[in-house]
Amino acid sequence: MDRREIVKLFAATCLWGVAAIAPAQVPGLPSWNDGAAKSRIIEFVGAVTTPGKDFVSPGDRIAVFDNDGTLWAEQPLYFQFQFMLDQLKAAAPKHPEWKDNAAFKALMAHDKAALEKMGQKPVLELLGIANSGMTVGDYDKSIRDWLAISKHPKYQRPYTDLVYLPMQELLAYLRANDFRTFIVSGGSVEFMRVWAEKAYGIPPEQVVGSQQEVKFAMKDGKPVLTREAKFAFIDDGPGKPVGIYRHIGKRPIAAFGNSDGDLQMLQFTAAGEGRRLELIVHHDDEQREFAYDRTSHIGKLDKALDEAKAKNWIVVSMKSDWKKVFAFEK
Amino acid sequence: MDRREIVKLFAATCLWGVAAIAPAQVPGLPSWNDGAAKSRIIEFVGAVTTPGKDFVSPGDRIAVFDNDGTLWAEQPLYFQFQFMLDQLKAAAPKHPEWKDNAAFKALMAHDKAALEKMGQKPVLELLGIANSGMTVGDYDKSIRDWLAISKHPKYQRPYTDLVYLPMQELLAYLRANDFRTFIVSGGSVEFMRVWAEKAYGIPPEQVVGSQQEVKFAMKDGKPVLTREAKFAFIDDGPGKPVGIYRHIGKRPIAAFGNSDGDLQMLQFTAAGEGRRLELIVHHDDEQREFAYDRTSHIGKLDKALDEAKAKNWIVVSMKSDWKKVFAFEK
Repeated sequence: MDRREIVKLFAATCLWGVAAIAPAQVPGLPSWNDGAAKSRIIEFVGAVTTPGKDFVSPGDRIAVFDNDGTLWAEQPLYFQFQFMLDQLKAAAPKHPEWKDNAAFKALMAHDKAALEKMGQKPVLELLGIANSGMTVGDYDKSIRDWLAISKHPKYQRPYTDLVYLPMQELLAYLRANDFRTFIVSGGSVEFMRVWAEKAYGIPPEQVVGSQQEVKFAMKDGKPVLTREAKFAFIDDGPGKPVGIYRHIGKRPIAAFGNSDGDLQMLQFTAAGEGRRLELIVHHDDEQREFAYDRTSHIGKLDKALDEAKAKNWIVVSMKSDWKKVFAFEK
Repeated sequence: MDRREIVKLFAATCLWGVAAIAPAQVPGLPSWNDGAAKSRIIEFVGAVTTPGKDFVSPGDRIAVFDNDGTLWAEQPLYFQFQFMLDQLKAAAPKHPEWKDNAAFKALMAHDKAALEKMGQKPVLELLGIANSGMTVGDYDKSIRDWLAISKHPKYQRPYTDLVYLPMQELLAYLRANDFRTFIVSGGSVEFMRVWAEKAYGIPPEQVVGSQQEVKFAMKDGKPVLTREAKFAFIDDGPGKPVGIYRHIGKRPIAAFGNSDGDLQMLQFTAAGEGRRLELIVHHDDEQREFAYDRTSHIGKLDKALDEAKAKNWIVVSMKSDWKKVFAFEK
């Protein structure tokens, strides 16, 4: 072995060391088409992670994501609402008194006019009752069981297949740049926690959502948490900045939503000092997903779309900005 | 250069690589005296981090810590209570109606008998009013301002000096073993978040605590969160497992407390399957700190001490298990 061989061996050893330390793959945004949305995201992340006037320390790199319609689909009915309806149907035999309940009758008859007229309060009250009375462990199991057998009416696939591939990539891309990513959703924490870690890489403690009351008691010498009918917190609209304050305790520097229910979260994020990123997913792809905005009952996007245009927030066109919507697409 | 030299060079290169990758310093428990408490902690951490029957995956290594009396001192009065009292005094001139309020009169007169008789409800209501009405940003500033000038009556030092060095080491030791560490305290989230990251390495989103209501509104085109007088959640006693469920969403495998207010959190942790660690800090060091347990009004330790003995939980003697209580000790 001569000197040149030694140098080669040495270099190979060092390079092997570097390769072993470097991450196997730096997440990118391969399912995003080149265009303004993608380049503005990359420019923002570059700006806040590069020493200079826009730099943000890793501890303050907080990104918040709405779930329904932003990270996964929400049509023709919020998936969790479908789950809670199924729980209602399953509980109905034990509740003969419901046959005189206006909300129950309207829900069972799919009477949209009656539901709209009564507003969401009596519906939530009824769903709250149907989704209470059991331990949190039993409720967790009922969610898992439902997800395992239920299929989306359009795609005939499990609901958890309907997460958006470009948003999964975006989450991983932000985390690779030392962001901490949180869900901030009108959905309930327990419904999302079950599958959010696998789908998004977001652990249970980074899921902020609506909450029913839960009560502690010792039963037969064992501590038990039981669900109560009352809602403790609705994490939607003006509730989202409150949920962020309560749970995260820092103002996010990036917020991602798709509907008017996300407007206050976007405004709250935008109101901080320094560089900010606000992004709205616009559902304009009827073929691959659904097309809806200003007049939809689910995921209505009206005021937030106006504000996005006025404030120059990023509006993502699912049709033109995303190469793929779902991972299962060919 | 012969073969032996090449082997030496190769070995040196590899070792250099290992040294560069290894953490600069593995946290230990230098302020803990050798004894049962220390060895049981180390044995537990070894068991759940070593492949085998007791192994717990890193995602499930959740540890929860009470704050007052567990991570920092709480005598002669919970420090946050002192802060809220000072806020009450400062607000009094604007509230002439308080002169007829029984709780206000008892607080100002330090009338312990009257306070005990009326219970905590009217006191919390009054403190709630005194600590509301301002934006969350203004309240945050008032906490920082108070901490900057206030001193503990016994030590004549800032309250934030009164964190327990052995517990700081324990937090770092657990995190070095891929635990995620949370505060779960009866204190309010905003009071702790201000200093918990610096004192304990615990970021704001890993602080679970009591919460006053907060309301979102747009004022002059800007989103504002304002504190309301009502308490939304009391994270104490049976509230602690509820707070853990709401915020963390997983059952902890290790819980650390010091009073009956932590009993349900310890029971909830103990009730999970597999190896668990439950630990109570016993305040038995009158010289370096305070000595109190079964009859104390602050941090009463009675039922939880009985249960600790019955269930063989670790009871830490501050006097004999800790070399140092505070970092400032000589």
